[in-house]
Amino acid sequence: MAASATLLSFISMCIVLAAVPQCLGRRGKYKYEPNWPSIDSRPLPSWYDEAKFGIFMHWGVFSVPSFGSEWFWWHWQGKPLAPYVEFMKKNYRPGFTYPDFAPMFTAEFYDPKTFAEIIDASGAKYVVLTSKHHEGFTNWPSKYSWNWNSMDVCPKRDLVGDLATAIRNYTKDVHFGLYHSLFEWFNPLYLQDKKGGFSTQTYTLDICLPELHEIIENYKPDVLWSDGDWEALPEYWNSTEFLAWLYNDSPVKDTVVTNDRWGQGTSCKHGGFYSCNDRYNPGTLQKHKWENAMTIDKKSWGFRRDAQLEDYLTTDELVAILAETVSCGGNLLMNIGPTHDGRIVPIFEERLRQMGDWLKVNGDAIYASKPWRAQNDTKTKGVWYTSKMEGAVLSVFAIVLDWPITNQILLGAPKATNQTQITMLGYSNQLQWKQAPSGTGIVVTMPTLNPAQLPCQWAWVLKMQTV
Amino acid sequence: MAASATLLSFISMCIVLAAVPQCLGRRGKYKYEPNWPSIDSRPLPSWYDEAKFGIFMHWGVFSVPSFGSEWFWWHWQGKPLAPYVEFMKKNYRPGFTYPDFAPMFTAEFYDPKTFAEIIDASGAKYVVLTSKHHEGFTNWPSKYSWNWNSMDVCPKRDLVGDLATAIRNYTKDVHFGLYHSLFEWFNPLYLQDKKGGFSTQTYTLDICLPELHEIIENYKPDVLWSDGDWEALPEYWNSTEFLAWLYNDSPVKDTVVTNDRWGQGTSCKHGGFYSCNDRYNPGTLQKHKWENAMTIDKKSWGFRRDAQLEDYLTTDELVAILAETVSCGGNLLMNIGPTHDGRIVPIFEERLRQMGDWLKVNGDAIYASKPWRAQNDTKTKGVWYTSKMEGAVLSVFAIVLDWPITNQILLGAPKATNQTQITMLGYSNQLQWKQAPSGTGIVVTMPTLNPAQLPCQWAWVLKMQTV
Amino acid sequence: MAASATLLSFISMCIVLAAVPQCLGRRGKYKYEPNWPSIDSRPLPSWYDEAKFGIFMHWGVFSVPSFGSEWFWWHWQGKPLAPYVEFMKKNYRPGFTYPDFAPMFTAEFYDPKTFAEIIDASGAKYVVLTSKHHEGFTNWPSKYSWNWNSMDVCPKRDLVGDLATAIRNYTKDVHFGLYHSLFEWFNPLYLQDKKGGFSTQTYTLDICLPELHEIIENYKPDVLWSDGDWEALPEYWNSTEFLAWLYNDSPVKDTVVTNDRWGQGTSCKHGGFYSCNDRYNPGTLQKHKWENAMTIDKKSWGFRRDAQLEDYLTTDELVAILAETVSCGGNLLMNIGPTHDGRIVPIFEERLRQMGDWLKVNGDAIYASKPWRAQNDTKTKGVWYTSKMEGAVLSVFAIVLDWPITNQILLGAPKATNQTQITMLGYSNQLQWKQAPSGTGIVVTMPTLNPAQLPCQWAWVLKMQTV
Amino acid sequence: MAASATLLSFISMCIVLAAVPQCLGRRGKYKYEPNWPSIDSRPLPSWYDEAKFGIFMHWGVFSVPSFGSEWFWWHWQGKPLAPYVEFMKKNYRPGFTYPDFAPMFTAEFYDPKTFAEIIDASGAKYVVLTSKHHEGFTNWPSKYSWNWNSMDVCPKRDLVGDLATAIRNYTKDVHFGLYHSLFEWFNPLYLQDKKGGFSTQTYTLDICLPELHEIIENYKPDVLWSDGDWEALPEYWNSTEFLAWLYNDSPVKDTVVTNDRWGQGTSCKHGGFYSCNDRYNPGTLQKHKWENAMTIDKKSWGFRRDAQLEDYLTTDELVAILAETVSCGGNLLMNIGPTHDGRIVPIFEERLRQMGDWLKVNGDAIYASKPWRAQNDTKTKGVWYTSKMEGAVLSVFAIVLDWPITNQILLGAPKATNQTQITMLGYSNQLQWKQAPSGTGIVVTMPTLNPAQLPCQWAWVLKMQTV
Repeated sequence: MAASATLLSFISMCIVLAAVPQCLGRRGKYKYEPNWPSIDSRPLPSWYDEAKFGIFMHWGVFSVPSFGSEWFWWHWQGKPLAPYVEFMKKNYRPGFTYPDFAPMFTAEFYDPKTFAEIIDASGAKYVVLTSKHHEGFTNWPSKYSWNWNSMDVCPKRDLVGDLATAIRNYTKDVHFGLYHSLFEWFNPLYLQDKKGGFSTQTYTLDICLPELHEIIENYKPDVLWSDGDWEALPEYWNSTEFLAWLYNDSPVKDTVVTNDRWGQGTSCKHGGFYSCNDRYNPGTLQKHKWENAMTIDKKSWGFRRDAQLEDYLTTDELVAILAETVSCGGNLLMNIGPTHDGRIVPIFEERLRQMGDWLKVNGDAIYASKPWRAQNDTKTKGVWYTSKMEGAVLSVFAIVLDWPITNQILLGAPKATNQTQITMLGYSNQLQWKQAPSGTGIVVTMPTLNPAQLPCQWAWVLKMQTV
Repeated sequence: MAASATLLSFISMCIVLAAVPQCLGRRGKYKYEPNWPSIDSRPLPSWYDEAKFGIFMHWGVFSVPSFGSEWFWWHWQGKPLAPYVEFMKKNYRPGFTYPDFAPMFTAEFYDPKTFAEIIDASGAKYVVLTSKHHEGFTNWPSKYSWNWNSMDVCPKRDLVGDLATAIRNYTKDVHFGLYHSLFEWFNPLYLQDKKGGFSTQTYTLDICLPELHEIIENYKPDVLWSDGDWEALPEYWNSTEFLAWLYNDSPVKDTVVTNDRWGQGTSCKHGGFYSCNDRYNPGTLQKHKWENAMTIDKKSWGFRRDAQLEDYLTTDELVAILAETVSCGGNLLMNIGPTHDGRIVPIFEERLRQMGDWLKVNGDAIYASKPWRAQNDTKTKGVWYTSKMEGAVLSVFAIVLDWPITNQILLGAPKATNQTQITMLGYSNQLQWKQAPSGTGIVVTMPTLNPAQLPCQWAWVLKMQTV
Repeated sequence: MAASATLLSFISMCIVLAAVPQCLGRRGKYKYEPNWPSIDSRPLPSWYDEAKFGIFMHWGVFSVPSFGSEWFWWHWQGKPLAPYVEFMKKNYRPGFTYPDFAPMFTAEFYDPKTFAEIIDASGAKYVVLTSKHHEGFTNWPSKYSWNWNSMDVCPKRDLVGDLATAIRNYTKDVHFGLYHSLFEWFNPLYLQDKKGGFSTQTYTLDICLPELHEIIENYKPDVLWSDGDWEALPEYWNSTEFLAWLYNDSPVKDTVVTNDRWGQGTSCKHGGFYSCNDRYNPGTLQKHKWENAMTIDKKSWGFRRDAQLEDYLTTDELVAILAETVSCGGNLLMNIGPTHDGRIVPIFEERLRQMGDWLKVNGDAIYASKPWRAQNDTKTKGVWYTSKMEGAVLSVFAIVLDWPITNQILLGAPKATNQTQITMLGYSNQLQWKQAPSGTGIVVTMPTLNPAQLPCQWAWVLKMQTV
Repeated sequence: MAASATLLSFISMCIVLAAVPQCLGRRGKYKYEPNWPSIDSRPLPSWYDEAKFGIFMHWGVFSVPSFGSEWFWWHWQGKPLAPYVEFMKKNYRPGFTYPDFAPMFTAEFYDPKTFAEIIDASGAKYVVLTSKHHEGFTNWPSKYSWNWNSMDVCPKRDLVGDLATAIRNYTKDVHFGLYHSLFEWFNPLYLQDKKGGFSTQTYTLDICLPELHEIIENYKPDVLWSDGDWEALPEYWNSTEFLAWLYNDSPVKDTVVTNDRWGQGTSCKHGGFYSCNDRYNPGTLQKHKWENAMTIDKKSWGFRRDAQLEDYLTTDELVAILAETVSCGGNLLMNIGPTHDGRIVPIFEERLRQMGDWLKVNGDAIYASKPWRAQNDTKTKGVWYTSKMEGAVLSVFAIVLDWPITNQILLGAPKATNQTQITMLGYSNQLQWKQAPSGTGIVVTMPTLNPAQLPCQWAWVLKMQTV
């Protein structure tokens, strides 16, 4: 068994071509240039692939109406949808505007330390907060969004800065990251540029880039999660210039990772890791590092009051998605939406703590793991593989989502020898196994464990080593 | 084995003394008189003891600040506590009054059908909604609480009536009940009576009794859950007169059950079932029918935004409380607090649906059960007993809260014979058992069940029959 | 020339029939009985007729929408009128209720001392504040209107008590009075009595009379201005019983005056002074003491924001109304409406101070005057007469509303002799006059006064004495 | 008698030096250059000097707290003053921010037609509305002040545009003008420029100039009333460049007038007319056209609720200020403040209509008049002169503020001959006069007019012509 193709090819490339940027970039000898080949040549800082699991948080003025989704403004007034229009008609006075919601974004219960503690308990290794969504409201006191930011109006706080500090003070190893929307639905300067076919860049130069610099310089995020790019080419956004600065000269040049949403045509193609579409989860191994950004509330990124229990993914489902994502080389960025008054509601807290409970037992199969040669099992559905070199020994992890009712599980992918030992994470004894009758794969006997003995509740990890 | 002492004594009394009220009352030949011996002589309508499990809902203007507890007003301005005073100082303008919260009690998401559906799914057989808490705000359009009720101000709806209708339309067999506070912290007419040592009854006659008649006549509740009685004697409240009317002449005279909070000295002593204290859970068999009214949020009856996940009892704990309560002859009334905007939040919904999941498998041990001669096991902690006559056969149910790690469980209380058969609810095969080596009790071998086979997640019921 | 018939007949009656109530009442020997002949027999305390001029103030929750009139609630929801319905639809959320306005009744600028100072400056000798209008909101902390009064909710003050204190502390001789509405449009207890044809008196006994006692006992008003009586007979309101108590035993029995709105059929017929209709101004001498209650804003008693300048009577018009009213035996009760935030707006302040300016010069013709044998002149329009005995000399005052363009004014009513002297109030010299050529009346030559010399701006008073 | 020195010198200059800008400018042959000598050389469009009287309106978010003055934000949070800090502490929740006021800027009663009608009735010939005050809130939908303008938030209207349209549709000859504040107290881009000693111009280029172009191009104002200039040099504001554009190429190049507030050192020195200080009223003839911008409410430009009647100048005082201002060559710009809900309150309406009443009679002495050789009389206080050539005849107007108690008025300034005729505006007959006994001046006998004959109430104009 061997390390993944990706890993290997990278190592060999560095040996052979000692001058390529991926190898030199870290040592500061290489300067990225504002073009995609150069930008794309930068290797991802390694912490990111090792982290595997992050928490996404969508928070903004949309958390005030807290209805439908974080696209509330757009669905109400951009391209109106009946439920949003009705909601406003029924509950607000005529003439009420979206900015009128801002004074109700009170965040009086916002305790960044509690946020940090919950995120830490979830087992996540990074967190990405919306610094500004498409509504344009900045969750930090931006000079370029006067009276439309979280300091000038309610909640009168630097939501971004307060979280950054808390994450750094109250977690061991959670990286702080920021989401940033390039465009703003209703910003008149953007609309003016757009109307002119993006031949002018007033919005980019006066608002967008200054704000990007503000967040990078003030909050030094390790993740810059770009979004809202799709209406214009990267040339409009000055994307490669910005990224060259970010990689060469910014205070986070050595640690920052970005995604691929930097203009029309860049998604799944240029930038840092690929986020492609929302809830991107290809189910097969990808050549390029990617991320599955998804939501616990199946229908919204922002907190919405109209969500029922059935709209929340169960911990069972969440663990399955984590297994599938990591097996295929992705990171999982799991989203929650804080409320307008600054709370992570208990249903989210429960899901996150349960993820943490599972990872406490099974983290060995996730953190710093590498995809294995097979991603999911060829014979039994619901089994996902990861791997890890520990010294000279390769461990292969089979994440079994559903306990086999017979207690016998047929795994088609592993090739075992006499030296192969199989254990279950969280359980101390070796498991019995035999070669599969068909000749391909093995049959593992799950341990007999009653409810008092089960190491965890949702998915069980078989660890296979051939010594 | 035999039926419980309570049951037996009732049956024999009826045979011997055919004219006592308990026996005649149901047939309408007996008129209750306004004194405790007569009132207390009324037998509880049988549906109540059979129901075992109900949902309590605390909803009111206190759901707007949604902070601390439903005693918000009192803790803020009655006998001030620092956190409440600080909360108001920090978040509201000086001069803001408690009634100023009323226009924010919007209930825009209130869908009584959804409430009914969730309650039904919980397995509860009755629901008790606060018609009026100590704040005096009536959740129905009371004539005696003008402009301080849910129709005259926000939410401009008959919250009580809408729920009553939905419960009757959308559940099979859930009884509708109402909580009612006799006193009102700040009602000036009450305070005037109180100041005069309760020598006048202006509040009782002008407000309290007219409101009680309104709710009984308009909503015909099967439970009248009285509270707020402790400052004055039952004579001040005209309690026995009211109960005599309720039992003799009201539209619910045949079905209604009440509790024991009808004035100083009545608690645990007079009225219908005994609720004694909040969260009353004696842990031993009681002679009189009683109820454990408790809260999922350990610290509050009303919804409060400052609750963390750890403040919510887990389903595991809730099932244990249900088992303990029913074993000792009580009913469990489990409380949730809807929000000011009319939602049952997902964490509550989850707890309730999980109770329903458990009851779907194990309801046989709960509904219409009777206490057994032993309540909890004498040898093994965490085992609670109930029983039921099915035809001539008595079933004894041992509710095992914690699965024995050895798979062997020693039960000290049962006396088994060769004819004794033991099964587990939700599992089809008979279990192996043997007489305990010590000679007292039996040792049951739990079935070997892997996670895919377990009938339920939280507590397991052994059913013992000697045929 | 002689004193008015009314005055004379009263004096002679007292001499002849020394035992009649009017004469004895003051000395406490007589007890009024709860029937109209007895109630009506009480003489009005003399201060009232002498005062002539009072200020009326309509203040309440209606001051919050401040639109249309103080009947806002009724015109919006009682018997809806389009402009009110439209105003609400346009400016408030659906479901907004009238009581939702209460938290906005802030009165933050309310300074009772300033109110007192302005009232004093107007020359008024009494003030009548709405203690409670038809909306039922009490401007004092009534025990019988919990959470629907000015202390329990915004503005969290005893508006009535604070004004009473200020009037007594900061004016020399202004009497404090209270308006009180018997009925309440939407009080459910009232509506219930009404629905039953007023065969029950729940509202009267539980709300109306207790509140009346509260205001009389707490604030000791010298005027009790009753209103809202027209839907029910005095028997429903227990009017005669209440008035008997007011006249016999209340703390204001010697000083209080009331009006005639005490039930169907009492208006212009029973009670104290007659107010008959709003803006009652008969234009002829009345046998019974009466009052012209009118408004500076022609269309509303409560402050309304939609009033234009043309809706306010000019000082010129107000002086004319005062003259006409006093000439015919009435008192003038001139209404202003304070704002929801507690201000008397400058336009009202200006009118009131200008009234005061006029009265400073011409008060001799008003205060403590009596109607003369003629009320207005028979030959020249716009001339109104009053009179006063000063020692043995009768002064007759001709209030000339319009300065004669020729400077010659023909007065048909006076009969002058050689001893007759004519002066103008505020001007020191005697005026020239001659018998009218027609033989009836006199022709007075107005003094030649340039703008720098005019004693006042709006109406000029000729004082005629025959010594 | 002769035209004023100013006028004459201009005429002769144009004859002699036919190429100077003042003479050519109007015909478009001359291009103003971005330097003060060139800018200052532009002659004021003639309509402005002829208009004499305009209405100023301060309206903005400051109209919501409506307390203290339009500098509310600054006095609260910029350089805090106790009354403002206390007002906020007493009436608003902690954390309330100034932008939180914006949703309450409702303007629901704003009827631009009514505004236009009142302005027209005042006799004013131009109106100047604050398009944006120092708070930065734009009363038009500016692209450069997103979510901080009157269209994006409450009142959701183009306040500027609506008034412009109404003024043009509903008045005969009132010019529309706009006030504009260069700086913004709290705009972070401005503060950044300021912090750097104004070495950068981010605010000027991104906000200030774009906004100025917006208002000029969209609303084509005939007055551009600049303010808020004093912290930075004109070079920071690009003032001369902007003015060159305004005078050469803007859509209002032929009609617009501006003032002198274009940067440190420009006041009373450069630009268009001189406004120098607020309430500038030098009392002597000025060489350069100037304007007295003052307020009816002596203490505030914005509407404030805490104004008492005594804070409002009387019409008498206002007429005196108009006379004094016009006599000395100034225009009077009289300020009122509309309310947050869109009203001109009656006290303002009354003052304005009374100005109009006075001007209807006496406008001949004001409109299109020129200063005379004397401004106020040398012998009698309170007499101000204006003049006008009508054909070959010069009329001199003496505005007599106080009617002489003796009816004789000594005027020291006029030199009369036998041909001199004196009349009073609004009175048809000629007045008697004689040479003053001292030999200097004349003594005029005022006509004998009773109140019914007076042409006006506040100041009287003697018109002197020597034919």
